[in-house]
Amino acid sequence: MVQAWAAMEPKQKLERYEYDARPIGPEEVEVEVETCGICHSDLSVVNNEWGISTFPAVPGHEIIGRIVAVGPYAKGVTIGQHVGIGWSAESCMHCPQCLAGDGNLCAENVATIVGHYGGFADRVRAHWQWVIPLPKGLDTKNAGPLLCGGTTVFAPFHEYDISPTHRVGVVGIGGLGHLGLKFAKAWGCEVTAFTSTESKADEARGFGAHHVVNSRDKDALKATAGSLDLLLVTVNVPLDWPAMIGTLAPRGRMHMVGVVLKPMPVMAMDLIMGQRSISGSPTAGPMVMAKMLDFSARHGISPQTEHFPMDQVNDALEHLKAGNARYRIVLDA
Amino acid sequence: MVQAWAAMEPKQKLERYEYDARPIGPEEVEVEVETCGICHSDLSVVNNEWGISTFPAVPGHEIIGRIVAVGPYAKGVTIGQHVGIGWSAESCMHCPQCLAGDGNLCAENVATIVGHYGGFADRVRAHWQWVIPLPKGLDTKNAGPLLCGGTTVFAPFHEYDISPTHRVGVVGIGGLGHLGLKFAKAWGCEVTAFTSTESKADEARGFGAHHVVNSRDKDALKATAGSLDLLLVTVNVPLDWPAMIGTLAPRGRMHMVGVVLKPMPVMAMDLIMGQRSISGSPTAGPMVMAKMLDFSARHGISPQTEHFPMDQVNDALEHLKAGNARYRIVLDA
Repeated sequence: MVQAWAAMEPKQKLERYEYDARPIGPEEVEVEVETCGICHSDLSVVNNEWGISTFPAVPGHEIIGRIVAVGPYAKGVTIGQHVGIGWSAESCMHCPQCLAGDGNLCAENVATIVGHYGGFADRVRAHWQWVIPLPKGLDTKNAGPLLCGGTTVFAPFHEYDISPTHRVGVVGIGGLGHLGLKFAKAWGCEVTAFTSTESKADEARGFGAHHVVNSRDKDALKATAGSLDLLLVTVNVPLDWPAMIGTLAPRGRMHMVGVVLKPMPVMAMDLIMGQRSISGSPTAGPMVMAKMLDFSARHGISPQTEHFPMDQVNDALEHLKAGNARYRIVLDA
Repeated sequence: MVQAWAAMEPKQKLERYEYDARPIGPEEVEVEVETCGICHSDLSVVNNEWGISTFPAVPGHEIIGRIVAVGPYAKGVTIGQHVGIGWSAESCMHCPQCLAGDGNLCAENVATIVGHYGGFADRVRAHWQWVIPLPKGLDTKNAGPLLCGGTTVFAPFHEYDISPTHRVGVVGIGGLGHLGLKFAKAWGCEVTAFTSTESKADEARGFGAHHVVNSRDKDALKATAGSLDLLLVTVNVPLDWPAMIGTLAPRGRMHMVGVVLKPMPVMAMDLIMGQRSISGSPTAGPMVMAKMLDFSARHGISPQTEHFPMDQVNDALEHLKAGNARYRIVLDA
């Protein structure tokens, strides 16, 4: 039996929840959880904000652990191996997206915490392809948040051929944003942090920002107009979108990883005049996740974390809800 | 003296207008106009829709002609050469965009018909870099509309690495859209035309569409959901944007070349879920224009045109305004 923490209904506190994991599937891997990061999307699923949650919901999809069982057809994985699991637990393997390495875009993609039990538990399962071996040199105690938050902000650098000569902005200095700054700095770019929280300015510089701009200051936004090749938006609240698009250089891209729920008003002319793009992406495929971990190990990139014991998960969630996490919470099993 | 047709004030009919072109500039080229296409943006400038027009306004920026004079420092051009001129007449040559071949994105770019006299005239001037030599085999009598309309819809194929294995949609079967269909077909793609005008369906197939979808039919749009790698929007009227974005395949791009003046409501989740992009672009740089002409000559691509003598320019403009152009009007000097 697996010992987990679950929300039995939407918006409820988590309770201890025991479930029978059944015999391991032919391509499944079982991992004993060491640590699990808490992502805002764990809260979104507990609260059923996106209308896709299933209950009981066992959150947790920034998992570090060791493999304790492998199905007979699982490939590239061995018992005892130190691994990570992120947002995706399974994909169909045979659609055009899966075949191209984009299993995160598979229509049958199974999220680790939707219709599947996640990592706030002593053990968790996933398809072998989504169980990512950890490279040597990774700060594994704090690496959990790389698996979802890190992957999410790393992917655009990989996907859109960002160059070290580019200027990169990161909007929102939180769980995702602080990792975005670290990746942008290590990628060799000129880095601008956008935050409405003045007190985060010094820390943002510590994470790698060359410049810090108050995202509510119209004059400051104007001063950055036309300068950024990539603007990574990690917040989920409405901003002055025309002004944010205005910060883009010719051929610049505003890339959404924060799930802003209100429609963003976009002027066609603002895209046409500078050949600008707006885009978004959901985490990444397994190969990009592995590259991200390798890049993190090589550049000494770790999330800035606060640790809670797993049995204080409800306190940890309250800490996150209150906006006090600096910058990512990790549960220790 | 140059004999031209000009709007003396916003929204006025064109009148005969004679101006002194002054001595030719050191890097200027003077072209004797043979034909000049009429683009919707000629009307937009006459009507000062974008607030950037200068008067008297001499429209005309889809010019075919022969060089009759060259400044002493003009490069790569000779008197008598058969050439085309499009939206841009000049750019600064030294900004990062110009140095990268993206003079169309230069902040100092001079449009042929804004602060500069255009091609509804017997002669017109441009900087040598924007005077594009015509390749052998081009249908020069009808080629004028390639210089702006053709360039505009060709550029995204070139800029975004569109592959012959891609599925391409074109929204709006008009001056730009019918050329978009021809390019997409010649590019080797699977082509879908979107039009709200049922009577254009057969012609759309003739231009290269494998499929024709009524863009006002919600069920038809749903049937194309998730299928298109590139959706080229050539109209300037609001559409059901979430449904149009919904036609995109994973990694698909909706690309705006039509100047839709109302903000488009874009849901971040619609971009994130399939790693989709929305973008726009203004014509292209001179190298891409030359490639477009070469591609057109090689594939026998010509705009479908209606010819008017230049002195019937006001009748021609009325014909365009009424939505009756099939599909591009060319004035013969």
